Amino acid sequence: MELLSQHGAFGGWQRFYRHESTEIGLPMKFALFLPPEPKALLVYLAGLTCTEETFTMKAGAQQMAAELGLALLMPDTSPRGANAPGEADAWDFGVGAGFYLDATQEPWAKHWRMESYLMYELLPLVQREFSLPAERTGIFGHSMGGHGALTLALRHPGVFRSLSAFAPICAPMQCPWGVKAFTGYLGEDRDAWPAHDASALMQAQASVPYPGGILVDQGLADKFLVEQLHPAAFEEACSLVGQPLTLRRHEGYDHGYYFIASFVDEHLKHHAAQLIG
Amino acid sequence: MELLSQHGAFGGWQRFYRHESTEIGLPMKFALFLPPEPKALLVYLAGLTCTEETFTMKAGAQQMAAELGLALLMPDTSPRGANAPGEADAWDFGVGAGFYLDATQEPWAKHWRMESYLMYELLPLVQREFSLPAERTGIFGHSMGGHGALTLALRHPGVFRSLSAFAPICAPMQCPWGVKAFTGYLGEDRDAWPAHDASALMQAQASVPYPGGILVDQGLADKFLVEQLHPAAFEEACSLVGQPLTLRRHEGYDHGYYFIASFVDEHLKHHAAQLIG
Repeated sequence: MELLSQHGAFGGWQRFYRHESTEIGLPMKFALFLPPEPKALLVYLAGLTCTEETFTMKAGAQQMAAELGLALLMPDTSPRGANAPGEADAWDFGVGAGFYLDATQEPWAKHWRMESYLMYELLPLVQREFSLPAERTGIFGHSMGGHGALTLALRHPGVFRSLSAFAPICAPMQCPWGVKAFTGYLGEDRDAWPAHDASALMQAQASVPYPGGILVDQGLADKFLVEQLHPAAFEEACSLVGQPLTLRRHEGYDHGYYFIASFVDEHLKHHAAQLIG
Repeated sequence: MELLSQHGAFGGWQRFYRHESTEIGLPMKFALFLPPEPKALLVYLAGLTCTEETFTMKAGAQQMAAELGLALLMPDTSPRGANAPGEADAWDFGVGAGFYLDATQEPWAKHWRMESYLMYELLPLVQREFSLPAERTGIFGHSMGGHGALTLALRHPGVFRSLSAFAPICAPMQCPWGVKAFTGYLGEDRDAWPAHDASALMQAQASVPYPGGILVDQGLADKFLVEQLHPAAFEEACSLVGQPLTLRRHEGYDHGYYFIASFVDEHLKHHAAQLIG
């Protein structure tokens, strides 16, 4: 783990690291905000085309995180430097578009292992290195990263104790971004897809996975809302299972980081209430 | 004035505009944050290499500005598209490095008129278009923009009612950035320089220009501090004139936007107290 840079921020430290990832088979970067007194860890997954720097730089989350004692972990959104054929041909697939799953199809299966990387490598590494209590870990994300937060939280019960999302891709099997990603990474056979679809996963729950409630914010001026995001599908799945969901629809807010910044403090409080109490 | 984009933010609007500037002779961009209830206007001048987007995106200032009722005006840092010979050869001179003055030397004199642009064109335009009371206008900035805020506030008495800066270039006549800029824009004759040097300007004041006090924050891990910034020179000038100055030196903070974000709320409160009361 190499410390690339660190910056004093709100009495704590905003740090950027690089490490050799065995799961990805390439060097990976991540950002970590350490508040003055870290009490819990909150993982943020970013959206298409983003990096570990996007939320770190644009969301304005560090002030409230410092106040609440939340360490923030911001991973990158895909492998970089794999040189897989076609990896940079599209902004919504390949580089910057890992979708937080392990690809099973060539040429992606070797490096595009974002789920295993996050769950079995980066998260334990950061918890260990910074002495953060594993039982106090939450996750949230935006757009593709909202999909990532919802699916990883449902696929790995017991790992995360709090969950929220900004404008998540709620039903990837039903939207162009998701169909493209799942076809490319998981293959044409749709049987492999529901295990990575937040709404399908929620609908399949035998009991309420997050009794403390899930918080989702969605802007109504979001140009991706109708075609790509389908929050109503997730809302319906939660309702079928009895999962408490606070889905807030905000007039005038779009898909960008000014939207995220406007509501991030409330997400941090949502997590802190469940992680720290 | 063309609205390029707008984003819902903290109950207000983050907007980006382009307009044909007669002072600059080229199109110029600026960013404007409009809080839900604008009561005063605060101008932020950015540093070397920055644009109208930098502070807008990185400082996390909109939340407190919305709360206090401060509209925020973020201009660009230089003309763009002038095609002056050598304009992009250096990161600290030419494009992205207007130094908030009117150049008198060729080939800069035609377009590099940032002082006249800001004071006689952009500021009145924004005050008029958005019905912002001219007597409630403050200014602050960072690094080169801190120099800009201090010098414009001292060169144009009565225009601004509040003043602060992050890591400003306090004595440009004594530092490499300033000597390079002043030589290029104002010429070899040093007689023209003190009128654009914050410490020299302050020292020449006949009475206290900002009786409400000036706030300056400076990081002690700032790699430009010793060679380029010279806050002690401004401190001494203030002391000679009896100008109240709160100069805070912060251990562990560098020259970047995590430093600015960490203290921006206190700057906004400093301005609101003097502008709105």
